[in-house]
Amino acid sequence: MKKTIGVIGGMGPSATCDLMEKIVALTRAARDQDHLHVIADSNTAIPDRTAAILHGGPDPVPELVKSARLLVSAGADLLIMPCNTAHCFYDQVAASVSVPLLHMPRLAAAALREADIRAVGVLATDGTVRSGVYDKALKQAGVRAVYPSPAMQRQVMRLIYDGVKGRTVPLDAIPVEDVLRDLRSRGAEKFLLACTELPIAFGALGLTADCLDATRALALAAVKAAGGEPAAPDPW
Amino acid sequence: MKKTIGVIGGMGPSATCDLMEKIVALTRAARDQDHLHVIADSNTAIPDRTAAILHGGPDPVPELVKSARLLVSAGADLLIMPCNTAHCFYDQVAASVSVPLLHMPRLAAAALREADIRAVGVLATDGTVRSGVYDKALKQAGVRAVYPSPAMQRQVMRLIYDGVKGRTVPLDAIPVEDVLRDLRSRGAEKFLLACTELPIAFGALGLTADCLDATRALALAAVKAAGGEPAAPDPW
Repeated sequence: MKKTIGVIGGMGPSATCDLMEKIVALTRAARDQDHLHVIADSNTAIPDRTAAILHGGPDPVPELVKSARLLVSAGADLLIMPCNTAHCFYDQVAASVSVPLLHMPRLAAAALREADIRAVGVLATDGTVRSGVYDKALKQAGVRAVYPSPAMQRQVMRLIYDGVKGRTVPLDAIPVEDVLRDLRSRGAEKFLLACTELPIAFGALGLTADCLDATRALALAAVKAAGGEPAAPDPW
Repeated sequence: MKKTIGVIGGMGPSATCDLMEKIVALTRAARDQDHLHVIADSNTAIPDRTAAILHGGPDPVPELVKSARLLVSAGADLLIMPCNTAHCFYDQVAASVSVPLLHMPRLAAAALREADIRAVGVLATDGTVRSGVYDKALKQAGVRAVYPSPAMQRQVMRLIYDGVKGRTVPLDAIPVEDVLRDLRSRGAEKFLLACTELPIAFGALGLTADCLDATRALALAAVKAAGGEPAAPDPW
């Protein structure tokens, strides 16, 4: 019996679409009816996660919990959150429902270890970086985290907030390659797209070489957890 | 007060993602919280619509109604169905809920008339073509419908079912340009992508010139109906 996947979404809404499309692409299917049942709540009322973690912004937990419960009421058997930064609030959201909530940073870290990666450049929001959610997951998996320098981290935030969320700056005006060079120079073997907006930007820029996509790792784990037949053996 | 959009989806699941992404792209927004609240039920248990209309396949209405009611219970203020063929069952689905259900073929036809198009090539499933759902909408809008010849219509079905839904045939192996030439030779000024799988195929093939996308017309109408600020003035 296949399970229904519930998506706590809207963080941002394009990242939710990207995750849903990855679930479709990673499911072996010859017709619509072979695909998994997915219910997504693109709840754009969820306050900004980084602002809450770093700048005393409104707490996102009440809206995250509201979406989680709504999805369970609607029939979701397991939940996922396509927002890495939201995983700072994982414990509170997971505790609010009786179904499993998959943990994207832990799944991504485990997949890095399986791929025998020892040191990874972490591209994420300030909130994710400062909360240590990836530090903990990567340490447990025995993978060294390499973070951008402060100046380069500002470029990552610009890419996420101005490039993808706000669409106020053309993506190619943001020096992504400098960021990757910086990470590589400090030992990163590969680059982890640890913000769900980044696969959108990197895909548009044609910069996916050596990039590992946490959204894709989450999508594959969700397909497996829901009893779907994965179309690919590994998440990278 | 903005309204929540409910998406009766899964027909197929990629078309649902495509519609959701178009809602995002067509909403003027500088941050996640400016976007509309969307709840999507990608209900892949909905039986094939063309099979039901033409070959006595299982009736999709019970699952369509189930999704519609689920979305209303979850808080949707208006509903949309990103599947043109499903609009053959529009009356039954609309009657099952107390919120408005937008009608994609009528919205697309009205947008064609606004763009002053007199004759359009209709690219759709056999179910949509034979049910007359676009005939009626286009007639009402004063737009002449041009359909592919039977041999060309088989290529359209191959593109939808083998190319996009089944992914068993590479898209470029299907002679899409022959279909467009056939329609043009019989008076079509433009081509209406009247199956929600087709924008995916045409986008991948780089064949969007002179194509009008019913999914995009529906997305724009949904943004307006929900009180979002449209990022573009017209749907084409």
